[in-house]
Amino acid sequence: MDHITALVELLSEDRVSTNETTLRNHGKDESHHTEALPHAVVFPKSTEEVSGINKIASQYEVPVIPFGLGSSLEGHVIPYQGGITVDFSLMNQIIEIRENDFLVKVQPGITRTQLNKALKQYGLFFPVDPGADATIGGMIATNASGTTSVRYGVMSDQVRNLEVVLADGNIIQTGSLAVKSSSGYHLNSLFVGSEGTLGLFTEITLQVYGIPEYTTAARAVFPTVSQAVDAVVKILQAGIPIARCELVDSYSMKQVNHHSKTNYLEAPTLFVEFHGNEAGLAQDVEFTQEIVYDLGCQEIIFENDSKAAYQLWEARHNLAYAFIHGASGKKLLVTDVCLPISELAGAINNARKTLEEFALVGGIVGHVGDGNFHVLLMVDKNDPKEMELTEKFTEHLVKYAIARGGTCTGEHGVGVGKKKYQRLEHGAAYDVMITIKKALDPKCILNPDKIIDKY
Amino acid sequence: MDHITALVELLSEDRVSTNETTLRNHGKDESHHTEALPHAVVFPKSTEEVSGINKIASQYEVPVIPFGLGSSLEGHVIPYQGGITVDFSLMNQIIEIRENDFLVKVQPGITRTQLNKALKQYGLFFPVDPGADATIGGMIATNASGTTSVRYGVMSDQVRNLEVVLADGNIIQTGSLAVKSSSGYHLNSLFVGSEGTLGLFTEITLQVYGIPEYTTAARAVFPTVSQAVDAVVKILQAGIPIARCELVDSYSMKQVNHHSKTNYLEAPTLFVEFHGNEAGLAQDVEFTQEIVYDLGCQEIIFENDSKAAYQLWEARHNLAYAFIHGASGKKLLVTDVCLPISELAGAINNARKTLEEFALVGGIVGHVGDGNFHVLLMVDKNDPKEMELTEKFTEHLVKYAIARGGTCTGEHGVGVGKKKYQRLEHGAAYDVMITIKKALDPKCILNPDKIIDKY
Repeated sequence: MDHITALVELLSEDRVSTNETTLRNHGKDESHHTEALPHAVVFPKSTEEVSGINKIASQYEVPVIPFGLGSSLEGHVIPYQGGITVDFSLMNQIIEIRENDFLVKVQPGITRTQLNKALKQYGLFFPVDPGADATIGGMIATNASGTTSVRYGVMSDQVRNLEVVLADGNIIQTGSLAVKSSSGYHLNSLFVGSEGTLGLFTEITLQVYGIPEYTTAARAVFPTVSQAVDAVVKILQAGIPIARCELVDSYSMKQVNHHSKTNYLEAPTLFVEFHGNEAGLAQDVEFTQEIVYDLGCQEIIFENDSKAAYQLWEARHNLAYAFIHGASGKKLLVTDVCLPISELAGAINNARKTLEEFALVGGIVGHVGDGNFHVLLMVDKNDPKEMELTEKFTEHLVKYAIARGGTCTGEHGVGVGKKKYQRLEHGAAYDVMITIKKALDPKCILNPDKIIDKY
Repeated sequence: MDHITALVELLSEDRVSTNETTLRNHGKDESHHTEALPHAVVFPKSTEEVSGINKIASQYEVPVIPFGLGSSLEGHVIPYQGGITVDFSLMNQIIEIRENDFLVKVQPGITRTQLNKALKQYGLFFPVDPGADATIGGMIATNASGTTSVRYGVMSDQVRNLEVVLADGNIIQTGSLAVKSSSGYHLNSLFVGSEGTLGLFTEITLQVYGIPEYTTAARAVFPTVSQAVDAVVKILQAGIPIARCELVDSYSMKQVNHHSKTNYLEAPTLFVEFHGNEAGLAQDVEFTQEIVYDLGCQEIIFENDSKAAYQLWEARHNLAYAFIHGASGKKLLVTDVCLPISELAGAINNARKTLEEFALVGGIVGHVGDGNFHVLLMVDKNDPKEMELTEKFTEHLVKYAIARGGTCTGEHGVGVGKKKYQRLEHGAAYDVMITIKKALDPKCILNPDKIIDKY
């Protein structure tokens, strides 16, 4: 194929692979979506090379798919139209740390734990923590978030500037180093979450944070999901700055007990973390206790020591393992939706009821402060009936969320899995998205068929 | 004119004005930019009427300019191409307050103080506070911010959903009610700051906040601007959650003393506000004192009582008045730039030096936590030499900021005044902005010639 020859000329043979194992490793992500192979996998080392790759792709009208570590959950990186997968593993450096500006400039292939390791010596950290140790490029592509967004926000809140290579190979800067700007259109947030369909990120400037002086962790058990969610609303209304706030439902606590031989109360459980100064935290703890007991909390345990705090959170950390080990031969399928927090308890209760109706095995874990929750399903990909039920369940979940002002995905992204719900969720705004995509990528070479149908 | 006839048919005569006083009132903003008149001013009452207005404008290819209260500072609302000014004063209602979701849905014509008055009974408040009591629609159009963005963020951080009427009259919703989403492209931030050039906002859903339990205010005096800025960096690095953080330079403190017959130290002065719980604030205050004295602070005074705190901040509040009353017959011209905070002290010192070189009278006030500062100039619009010097000064300020990773405007917006710097600041990204504008407004009827040249 002519575009492969051109790529070899650009990058030399050792950084253009058509080896079958390499193609297979880049033909899937961590989701259940069907695999597909690219024509070639390339390993650029610079922005100029990425620009050259896009120019070749544009000339030969073949797809370009950016690839971090393949930890996405909705088939984002699967090259259903073939083409060139751009693996960013050789572009994984920290370019600059500006500690007085709370800024770091990195290449897209660096992972979040690699970044945090480097930041630690400056007393800084990067808060966004999706389940996987994903690359920063991938996390921007899906607008990832995690347990800390109730305090620190999601990826789009952290991005100060992106260097983006467009479909035609042109290179742009979407922002600046300033904390805020009212100049031009704000392109940062348009490219964050665009899943490789508008451009490829080659340099990323992120906001980072001072490591908090003190942290306190807590685990609180409630008779019902509604009471647990009410407690979170009251804590937020009181202005108590919770940094993490996770809900694990009773069924999942049971799985954890079974897996870890623990004897946690098998009831809806909140895992909370507070960041602040010592005196402030003490007062927050006292006030939080009052609030949760008022709302029927059965037990709340606090821990200041970081090791003990980790142990306190153990059930939350082990949740996925508990499900995976509890259903051998099956695959973990995680889906997510997000609703206004006032609708969250109803949505979780409805999800549990629907799981029972469909006789599906599933755990529910929620980033409660954001109104976001996941259902962890153990499925047999080779059982068409089970897969059909799973699909029906997801559809029910999504429609329930959208009907109540929510979104079909709070943090996993659209990929191929949630594409069918885009029109339902966005209505006429979906046409605006299609218009923008067509204007910026007229040949539809950038990760085609993700978010928006190939044209 | 045929489009006027069509507008009268749509809205009836009493809501379509061609009265000269009305046209004049809508032909200017609070800036020094030359006035110009629209063909007509219309007063819609509903989204459907705004849609009808845009359809008429599109059919007759005449400009549409959204208008809040005309408090913009870069000529945003001046109809240089004539056309229809859409005054949103009849669309100024609160549609819904969802207190448990920390959300409020409003019409664009409501002002920020009207909104806060309504929120107060729920224990909630909306933090963004530009100088003027602007409309929420206008604040979104310019991505406004103010003294609290160091803690609460700018307008684009508050917007959960916008109902937007596009150039062709189609109506879209740019977001949802969920705290976060990874679905579709993120249109909220694209429309925030678009200054009426991509669509007209008809309903706005904003995030609001619990009124903080305790506030403490402080005023701290430093020998130099650099020491004051260093103190802020250290306070931020320590994770002390300052909610406001303003710098007033020594020249401006002198003007305030002269105007108010006060005897503040005439030196760079920080005005700070802390939000939190009582114990936490006490510890923050103690730590802040240590930090500022370490950095050469000459005097720091704290106040917990809200009335006393207001008095403590009086010099900051009175700054514009001090300049206006100190230079009768002249007009206040305020410009703004924003830089990475590590470049802020240098930029302020350079601005002061340049003012002296140009023999211009100007005060400097900075939202230090954001790296944003304003120069308040007293100018005689009828003195071409002074206006030319002012223009030269602004150009110097902007180029200094852009060369150091900053932006030509941190919160005032582009309008006509900063349009000439868009290419310099955004480079090839400016072409992406133009591509998006042309794709969404092919006839260039939406506030033409603002941000982007008329095509």
